[in-house]
Amino acid sequence: MAADPRFFLQAGPQSLAALLDAAGASSPGDPARRFVGVARLQDATEDQVSFLDNRRYLDALTSTRAGAVVLAEAFVAQAPPGCVPIVAKAPYLAFARIAALFHPAPAPLPGIHPSAVVDPSARIGEGTEIAPLAVVGAGAEIGPRCLIGPHAVIGPGVMLGEGCRIHAHASVSHALLGRAVVLHPGARIGQEGFGFAPTPDGRYVTMPQLGRVILEDGVEIGANACVDRGSQGDTVIGAGTRVDNLVQLAHNVRTGRGCVLASQVGISGSTTLGEFVQAAGQVGMTGHLVIGRGARIGAQAGVINDVSPGVELFGTPALPVKEAFRQVAVLKRMSARSRGGKGEGG
Amino acid sequence: MAADPRFFLQAGPQSLAALLDAAGASSPGDPARRFVGVARLQDATEDQVSFLDNRRYLDALTSTRAGAVVLAEAFVAQAPPGCVPIVAKAPYLAFARIAALFHPAPAPLPGIHPSAVVDPSARIGEGTEIAPLAVVGAGAEIGPRCLIGPHAVIGPGVMLGEGCRIHAHASVSHALLGRAVVLHPGARIGQEGFGFAPTPDGRYVTMPQLGRVILEDGVEIGANACVDRGSQGDTVIGAGTRVDNLVQLAHNVRTGRGCVLASQVGISGSTTLGEFVQAAGQVGMTGHLVIGRGARIGAQAGVINDVSPGVELFGTPALPVKEAFRQVAVLKRMSARSRGGKGEGG
Amino acid sequence: MAADPRFFLQAGPQSLAALLDAAGASSPGDPARRFVGVARLQDATEDQVSFLDNRRYLDALTSTRAGAVVLAEAFVAQAPPGCVPIVAKAPYLAFARIAALFHPAPAPLPGIHPSAVVDPSARIGEGTEIAPLAVVGAGAEIGPRCLIGPHAVIGPGVMLGEGCRIHAHASVSHALLGRAVVLHPGARIGQEGFGFAPTPDGRYVTMPQLGRVILEDGVEIGANACVDRGSQGDTVIGAGTRVDNLVQLAHNVRTGRGCVLASQVGISGSTTLGEFVQAAGQVGMTGHLVIGRGARIGAQAGVINDVSPGVELFGTPALPVKEAFRQVAVLKRMSARSRGGKGEGG
Repeated sequence: MAADPRFFLQAGPQSLAALLDAAGASSPGDPARRFVGVARLQDATEDQVSFLDNRRYLDALTSTRAGAVVLAEAFVAQAPPGCVPIVAKAPYLAFARIAALFHPAPAPLPGIHPSAVVDPSARIGEGTEIAPLAVVGAGAEIGPRCLIGPHAVIGPGVMLGEGCRIHAHASVSHALLGRAVVLHPGARIGQEGFGFAPTPDGRYVTMPQLGRVILEDGVEIGANACVDRGSQGDTVIGAGTRVDNLVQLAHNVRTGRGCVLASQVGISGSTTLGEFVQAAGQVGMTGHLVIGRGARIGAQAGVINDVSPGVELFGTPALPVKEAFRQVAVLKRMSARSRGGKGEGG
Repeated sequence: MAADPRFFLQAGPQSLAALLDAAGASSPGDPARRFVGVARLQDATEDQVSFLDNRRYLDALTSTRAGAVVLAEAFVAQAPPGCVPIVAKAPYLAFARIAALFHPAPAPLPGIHPSAVVDPSARIGEGTEIAPLAVVGAGAEIGPRCLIGPHAVIGPGVMLGEGCRIHAHASVSHALLGRAVVLHPGARIGQEGFGFAPTPDGRYVTMPQLGRVILEDGVEIGANACVDRGSQGDTVIGAGTRVDNLVQLAHNVRTGRGCVLASQVGISGSTTLGEFVQAAGQVGMTGHLVIGRGARIGAQAGVINDVSPGVELFGTPALPVKEAFRQVAVLKRMSARSRGGKGEGG
Repeated sequence: MAADPRFFLQAGPQSLAALLDAAGASSPGDPARRFVGVARLQDATEDQVSFLDNRRYLDALTSTRAGAVVLAEAFVAQAPPGCVPIVAKAPYLAFARIAALFHPAPAPLPGIHPSAVVDPSARIGEGTEIAPLAVVGAGAEIGPRCLIGPHAVIGPGVMLGEGCRIHAHASVSHALLGRAVVLHPGARIGQEGFGFAPTPDGRYVTMPQLGRVILEDGVEIGANACVDRGSQGDTVIGAGTRVDNLVQLAHNVRTGRGCVLASQVGISGSTTLGEFVQAAGQVGMTGHLVIGRGARIGAQAGVINDVSPGVELFGTPALPVKEAFRQVAVLKRMSARSRGGKGEGG
């Protein structure tokens, strides 16, 4: 199934030579052979390029009608006759670059739409697009070649580096963004964190939230996700970190570079993640924790203690994944015994 | 408590005959008797209609002052004297239709508000309302009798069938919507899914997300819920499926018709649901699963394996509900023993 | 680290006398001594004020260079020489008031931005600010000294009391708000709840949702959180209740005053919370429950039964916290035994 031309730019055909150049790959095929796009193994036709990244899909490889397939050296022999192998050490990465060659992300259309409301004191970089009904506050500075989508709100004083893409309805306040930061629709950056002090008569007084949000270069924040500004000091998301939809990052959370936080993860205030920490969907972490570099937290786990580097966890309260599944097995065995009439209470 | 006229249309009074006609119900009452609205059993007065759908509320029935009550044949005898029984096989459904008769959803007010930004190449169907500050992109096609709410964004090339209602702040891109699709405020449809390839030097390259979102006829998506477009191929939500607030549906998720996904559910990429699957609040499902027709997943369950049709599950990792609660009971017994000083380690 | 003047008002310097007056605190220091702002113990300099609220940070106190520190009487002796103690019974509360003195929340700038779309029948109170591109519907009434942020949508007939702050992209319909209510960016108030009746042929008919949302005085609702209106009768959030980001409150939920609901909590329809209930992150509650006054629900817990006042719970299904952790310990012991080769099945 080809990319729908109503929604995606088409930059084909591309020669095999161009594909290899983009992907850093090699191929025994004719460098002049031309392809028009990409597709999955089961859908691809002879003028399309597909890929194999997972042994599970070997059957699809052997029966594909794709004109070319990006794959690892080890699987070349399994490609059907006539299918051009494109050999890469990291086939998924190589395919991402080939797909982007056929279907580049749309470039900003420089200029400010007349319906946008841009404060005269804001500075807008060269080549930047401000879409309909966007709002840019006083003193904001937006770098060159950014896209500010329809209805996006960039608050007073906010700074964006070069090449940021702020999609529809995202809002940013009290924040400094590096280069190439992406906010997906409805992302909320820089609002007040959840902090207040109880009074003797049962009310709450808001603790002024006086920090900022720092999103380093290449950070991406998913749709309707929230990153609160620091209470004192900053909330900092490390370079290249990818945050999925509906994630909550509370005040003063800090992540190292390259973290991956899947959808609906929630991280409480002041918890710090090392580099390359991965959390699967719906993981929760309580506040003031330290999560070591490269730790991997399984789906729905609840982390309530510090985590050593490289550890893999599962469950609530989270345990090392082997121990968590051992407990699952133990409980299952006991339940089976109980069911067998030999209840351990007997 | 009557519906507040500041917020709801009032289309009463209605005759009993009209109510029976709308509801497909029967009654021994005077067909000409007139009622002005609906209310709960405990609040209703003699000119209002109420309903009983749950045996738990039988006490409220016997003491109600409602002028009429929608109920099943079996409960007619328990209605107090003077209360007109409206007998229906499915009382909740019958009541829904009666309530809608008294308080119809507001119809679109045809026309484009002058503050909306509609690309000249977009096509807008007859009778459609475009509210203040909505944005409709190039080449979009919006069917007849749709409502596009304030601040809604319909992206370039998006197609909507007849009678869709897109509420405030919802955004749609890269998507095809059938008839009578409803997006509640802040719903996000069609944004880029969460896909990227790691590079050898610890960065991530976005995998172009080249699919679409297909919302079939009658689909409803809750407030601030997210449906990402496919990576290759489409994300497809089956006809009539109801999705509650803050739900996450990742790229290439597919559901059959009539699924019900409660609030804060999260479904990872490429998982497929059969028809009429139900997932309660905060359920999570990992990617690439197949969930059988009519499966029912209990609140907060974590599904990490394929699920057979009709099965009911609970827990993380999810188990058949009886087994899950057997394990809960076993653990409780063991804990009680341990507490009694007979620790099983002794 | 001082508050960034790009983002925060600076109302200093302030005399010690003014600080004591605001905080209701006492100090042996020179009342005329002046300070310029606030900072954490580890960052503060001699012209800044810090605070100690947690014994854990005693080391930071003894080495701080802060000019003054807000603390309890018991810790005065541990403040370093030259550091002025500001003694308060509730140091965190006192510090909140001092921080607000230095950095007051920005006041509304009275007036309606020309790009806002305000229905002529709406009434706008004195001193209220309507920001760019906000929408106010027919018959809405907005009290004095409110802030209606950029892109906020106030639906027809909605009423707001004095001093409300509705931040960017929030939407409100079918709702009555008291005084000093705060909606953070993207909060969704008053949309249709999740109610529908199945038809014999496998479709769903929406149950008209004919209630409202009542947010009492001082309620705060977090970014992208959702509060659905009642189906019949109202959804009611008690005075002063604080709701964090991405929380879901379904139709007909009712909370007493002073509840605290952390991020990603989900409460199903018609569940009622007493006063001062606290739920930590990602807690779920099924519908139609009664949660007693002062109950405290631990992170990720799943509540499926009524809860007595004052009880502390953890786990899914939720248990009293001691019992929950006893079960965690029992399972751990059994797993250890199993690992030791003495599998209880043997």
